[in-house]
Amino acid sequence: MYVAQPIQWTDNGVVMLDQRRLPTEEISYTYTTYQDVAKAIREMVIRGAPAIGVAAAMGVAIGVQNSSAKSLESLRAEFPIILDTLAKTRPTAVDLFWALERMKSRFAEVSAQTSDLAEIKSALVAEAKAVHLEKRATDEAIGHFGAEFMPREGRVMTQCNAGALATGGIGTALGVIQVAVQQGKKLHVLVPETRPYLQGARLTAWELHRSNIPLTLITDNMVGHFLKTGNIGAIVTGADRIAANGDTANKIGTYQIAVLAREHNVPFYIAAPVSTFDLSIASGE
Amino acid sequence: MYVAQPIQWTDNGVVMLDQRRLPTEEISYTYTTYQDVAKAIREMVIRGAPAIGVAAAMGVAIGVQNSSAKSLESLRAEFPIILDTLAKTRPTAVDLFWALERMKSRFAEVSAQTSDLAEIKSALVAEAKAVHLEKRATDEAIGHFGAEFMPREGRVMTQCNAGALATGGIGTALGVIQVAVQQGKKLHVLVPETRPYLQGARLTAWELHRSNIPLTLITDNMVGHFLKTGNIGAIVTGADRIAANGDTANKIGTYQIAVLAREHNVPFYIAAPVSTFDLSIASGE
Repeated sequence: MYVAQPIQWTDNGVVMLDQRRLPTEEISYTYTTYQDVAKAIREMVIRGAPAIGVAAAMGVAIGVQNSSAKSLESLRAEFPIILDTLAKTRPTAVDLFWALERMKSRFAEVSAQTSDLAEIKSALVAEAKAVHLEKRATDEAIGHFGAEFMPREGRVMTQCNAGALATGGIGTALGVIQVAVQQGKKLHVLVPETRPYLQGARLTAWELHRSNIPLTLITDNMVGHFLKTGNIGAIVTGADRIAANGDTANKIGTYQIAVLAREHNVPFYIAAPVSTFDLSIASGE
Repeated sequence: MYVAQPIQWTDNGVVMLDQRRLPTEEISYTYTTYQDVAKAIREMVIRGAPAIGVAAAMGVAIGVQNSSAKSLESLRAEFPIILDTLAKTRPTAVDLFWALERMKSRFAEVSAQTSDLAEIKSALVAEAKAVHLEKRATDEAIGHFGAEFMPREGRVMTQCNAGALATGGIGTALGVIQVAVQQGKKLHVLVPETRPYLQGARLTAWELHRSNIPLTLITDNMVGHFLKTGNIGAIVTGADRIAANGDTANKIGTYQIAVLAREHNVPFYIAAPVSTFDLSIASGE
């Protein structure tokens, strides 16, 4: 199993793989300021709701770590500016706000216990790393839980990219497929190219190819044809946000794939972590 | 109303607009041999079932017109080669075979009446021109018949290109929209880009823009979203071939748009001439 690394915490800074250049170029950048991390999120160097959450947590951590504040009071004054800068990058990604809220809580907690700036910085870096590790553990859990819904063999379909590139773990929807294949299921994945940004063609096809999982790239208008004629055993996609009633916001096209899946009696699954749920929203309307 | 001219019979030869280069370049070629007309059909300089029929008829006419045969016998020997060359260009376009059959009948008819080669050549050129004129009349009839199914105002949708470029007349599906707009209906057309060749984006958007009909270009995976939320009054598309039971073969994506239309109770129409029916095929299966 090949697991792409969209984001990594290193001693030199936050390293991100530029997903806009895949699959033809694999280029990484190292960011040392929270402003640069915010810019990278805004400009889609990184994308995918869970990965954006990890990036936001690391952005807060690097902002605090590199702060020139000499006292807890001035760090307390700077902290909301860091949060606000990161909050403005991708307003539709609920994981972003979940991650910022978590870093805010940790800051409040640790700064109530100590005024030692080195200790506070260290705690926030540890928290960001913990967010990343938990995403990985979550993906593993989703993958193992979801794998049993995949057929023993045959064709499955996904859409856009809900792989390692989107989460920082093994992926949500692609994690399900990866684990199913590891368990010995013989899957062939149909990948709609996912216009306008072609995340299916550029990212999902690349990840599956790297993992030696057979795939067929199709255009988005071929989905109905293959659901009617192609013996698709299951469809699994990720989610940007899930409302309290289960309605799911995701890449454009997800809704029509779901309608087409029902028409052809093909099971359709959303693979997503709890952090993607937004219980403050009653429904998708 | 702007009506594009994909193909024209001229004294210098068959003039075709290169549809592969639209909308950025408007380049025409003049073909003086049936082999070149066949190559143009095969390489998609011209496309659209009815326009391919016109091209095939003109291809036969120019082949006969420019034949170096000195006797009816040698023209009779050459004629099947001309037909065969054109028949091999686009085997899915039933209009192609309809047009070749028609030219074949006319050749049999006129060569039974006379052995004057000039007269035979003239009759076949006249027949090809007649095929073109009849396509135009057919489009006008389809347009007027279909216009009444369009809403008085609001959004409609089409797919791929079934416009003047596809027929040599005012178009089938776009002819319906053109006539409706001429009648005073205020339509706004949603145009899926139609991957992989982008006929919606490149051809339909170009034709509508030239006719000053408002349009919105969308990606193919936005169709479901707009059918759910966009108050679409009707969908009208062309057809490559229609089976005896009404099942229609058309550009990839037509089937899923039809399924989505039914889900959202949006009327879905196919606009096509009788020559597109293939009663030898029982159903689309």
